[in-house]
Amino acid sequence: MAAISSLSLKTPTKIQSLTKTHYAIPLNLPFSCRSKSKRTGSIGSRTRIRCGLLIEPDGGKLVELFVEESQRELKREDALKLPKIKLTKIDLEWVHVLSEGWASPLKGFMREDEFLQTLHFNSIRLEDGSVVNMSVPIVLAIDDSQKNLIGGSSSVALVDDENNPIAILSDIEIYKHNKEERIARTWGTTAPGLPYVDEAITHSGNWLIGGDLKVIDPVKYNDGLDRFRLSPAELRDEFTRRNADAVFAFQLRNPVHNGHALLMTDTRRRLLEMGYKNPVLLLHPLGGYTKADDVPLHWRMKQHEKVLEDGVLDPETTVVSIFPSPMHYAGPTEVQWHAKARINAGANFYIVGRDPAGMSHPLEKRDLYDADHGKKVLSMAPGLERLNILPFRVAAYDKTKNGMAFFDPSRPQDFIFISGTKMRTLAKNNENPPDGFMCPGGWKVLVEYYDSLAAAENGRVAEPVPS
Amino acid sequence: MAAISSLSLKTPTKIQSLTKTHYAIPLNLPFSCRSKSKRTGSIGSRTRIRCGLLIEPDGGKLVELFVEESQRELKREDALKLPKIKLTKIDLEWVHVLSEGWASPLKGFMREDEFLQTLHFNSIRLEDGSVVNMSVPIVLAIDDSQKNLIGGSSSVALVDDENNPIAILSDIEIYKHNKEERIARTWGTTAPGLPYVDEAITHSGNWLIGGDLKVIDPVKYNDGLDRFRLSPAELRDEFTRRNADAVFAFQLRNPVHNGHALLMTDTRRRLLEMGYKNPVLLLHPLGGYTKADDVPLHWRMKQHEKVLEDGVLDPETTVVSIFPSPMHYAGPTEVQWHAKARINAGANFYIVGRDPAGMSHPLEKRDLYDADHGKKVLSMAPGLERLNILPFRVAAYDKTKNGMAFFDPSRPQDFIFISGTKMRTLAKNNENPPDGFMCPGGWKVLVEYYDSLAAAENGRVAEPVPS
Repeated sequence: MAAISSLSLKTPTKIQSLTKTHYAIPLNLPFSCRSKSKRTGSIGSRTRIRCGLLIEPDGGKLVELFVEESQRELKREDALKLPKIKLTKIDLEWVHVLSEGWASPLKGFMREDEFLQTLHFNSIRLEDGSVVNMSVPIVLAIDDSQKNLIGGSSSVALVDDENNPIAILSDIEIYKHNKEERIARTWGTTAPGLPYVDEAITHSGNWLIGGDLKVIDPVKYNDGLDRFRLSPAELRDEFTRRNADAVFAFQLRNPVHNGHALLMTDTRRRLLEMGYKNPVLLLHPLGGYTKADDVPLHWRMKQHEKVLEDGVLDPETTVVSIFPSPMHYAGPTEVQWHAKARINAGANFYIVGRDPAGMSHPLEKRDLYDADHGKKVLSMAPGLERLNILPFRVAAYDKTKNGMAFFDPSRPQDFIFISGTKMRTLAKNNENPPDGFMCPGGWKVLVEYYDSLAAAENGRVAEPVPS
Repeated sequence: MAAISSLSLKTPTKIQSLTKTHYAIPLNLPFSCRSKSKRTGSIGSRTRIRCGLLIEPDGGKLVELFVEESQRELKREDALKLPKIKLTKIDLEWVHVLSEGWASPLKGFMREDEFLQTLHFNSIRLEDGSVVNMSVPIVLAIDDSQKNLIGGSSSVALVDDENNPIAILSDIEIYKHNKEERIARTWGTTAPGLPYVDEAITHSGNWLIGGDLKVIDPVKYNDGLDRFRLSPAELRDEFTRRNADAVFAFQLRNPVHNGHALLMTDTRRRLLEMGYKNPVLLLHPLGGYTKADDVPLHWRMKQHEKVLEDGVLDPETTVVSIFPSPMHYAGPTEVQWHAKARINAGANFYIVGRDPAGMSHPLEKRDLYDADHGKKVLSMAPGLERLNILPFRVAAYDKTKNGMAFFDPSRPQDFIFISGTKMRTLAKNNENPPDGFMCPGGWKVLVEYYDSLAAAENGRVAEPVPS
């Protein structure tokens, strides 16, 4: 279950109060920020930014791994002479993630030292002795034939399906890819059926290749959604342009209903009460690989747009953007990555739900992770001490108010918990949820999505998402 | 393979130089040391000790979890009124470990916060924000019926096989024992056949109970070896009595041959060259649970005694003592525990070998861990920055010298690598190894051990170890 699916909790035992478990530490290091985005065509990137208000990126400096525009042709020619590694779709998503600095201070795919620290410590020690969080391996697998092809070369070209050079990986290190150990230490299980493992690890090569990454052209998907894919630097520009003095991030990979909206609105109210003048919400749907039964990104973005159009969330204090990372479904391990990446984008508050990045056990009839472990592990994670963790409050449908409200354990009979399964069943059957569960425009998108699925199952080609 | 089995390396590719990968950091905190041991009857404990020379224990203060002698009867009576948890042999070994402060600053079996940090971060953050290493869960499993028996009690008595109270666990917390996740994150595999898992986890209860431990009587085994079981406090006393200004620890669970002796002697020589005046070796065989095909503790101790008697190691600068921990065979995860526990005993140098705490994969024809990972992970481990890691140099039988020598890659033809398997085969067949491989007294003990095994296999009862 994702962060936002806490509404599927059937028997809530206690309400999580919105208390700070971490407090921001005063920073002594100078702020690192760009005066001009290296990318073009995205909002906010040309605004002159002021430094000092946002949380500092991990490692003190936001990493960006793009070849200078003037050097691109030269590097493209260089790349053509190098041994070539063909990228999978998920590899390309990681190139995107690394290139924009979501994983700052990582400068490329992990070498073995970084990989081992990630697996064993969920954190990496920098040269100055400080520690940054890093819980999910960001690695590139190659097979024996690719390894042989590389031979003694110290650099390789990373290419797309059509052999177009995307990036150069230099000062490379090749080391063994012990898949069993990687899976066991990342997921806490080796049971067959983990979506990311099936998709990206099981059939991948027996070697990993790390090195310094330089991306020749910023990664684009040309799917109509690139305008929503703001880099950490662009988000920082945007938050600064809006004079945000607090940024609270909400990671999601599901449609937004009014329970989420209530939570986000309430969080802003509380931050104002704490003395912040202009808290801004980063509504940050995950845009990389997701498992087959999740609602696809296009439909989710359309639904999120409706939620803003319908006024459920205030566009003035909300930034909707796409987080380009693939999804691991690795629970307490992955939630740290989700939080850490948002620090790099300028968020100093992170909302964490019940069983974040969790799912059902692939073999057994139970959730893979304890529902409270994500929140607990996140609150204790090395390198995240600067981030304020905001535990998710449980919302449910309050029959006395005909709307979503925070669950009140003193009158449980007044509340209905509408699980993700229940929501999907209603949408599939073209039935309506109780009034006030989701804004009508958003609900209509969901119904359309399930209609298109049903049509596809009946042998018709699914309609593309209306743009 | 244990640290000392690096001699079984068939194709060494490079020599590990004895360089410091960590340097001791100057300490500002006051030293914690006892002026008098709470235990009696052990060597060194009554010596007036001077503070300030030895490395500080983790957390700043060596934890000892014994009931004051004057309170013992009272506590024994209290214990009789509490719900009882029967300890297994391995549970008792952990009680021993905890009670003497090997796991300082742990004050008892882990509560869930400590357990989660151990699994995810191999370290625990203390209240003051500092971090100590803790890589192996030290937990106590109970089953449903024991949990029901405890009911709402906030304390339990830990009892032996005959219901004698050993200790009291108070302010308890009971939480789920997700065995699969614990195993995957500790061993990096869930393959069946891991010795500690088979022995201590698979059939254990589905709950873990944490709390503050108080041991009523110090744990004794009455096996003739208790005199070798010095606590961290007693070892600190002993090192201080000997005016040690450096303590280098050697963890082992195998017989000592002349290659080990060479390494230890050479380490002392190098420490003297570095300016230390009196480096003392802690020769520290592991005394808790080991797998069936390891040489039993009694035989190993007898062999170690012969090695000192035969003058292979200098008794003046060597302390032989038993480390009471059970063995996990968890490679890079466990070697951190082995190193961390020795800090608490006063060691500031730790010798690490090839594939420490490793073993063969239980299902596949390969070692479970990469032979270099233990050393790499140890050198990067959080909370061990103060410890000087000394990588193991590869020794082999030098035919030109008729003795063990550090392997010289410029003349590989002169060296014979005598693996553990080869050594055992020779001893089993009552054959002699090349002269100079092991001192004759030590070798004789090994031959006797395998004779006793063969006799037992032929239906005769194995002879007890001569005392």
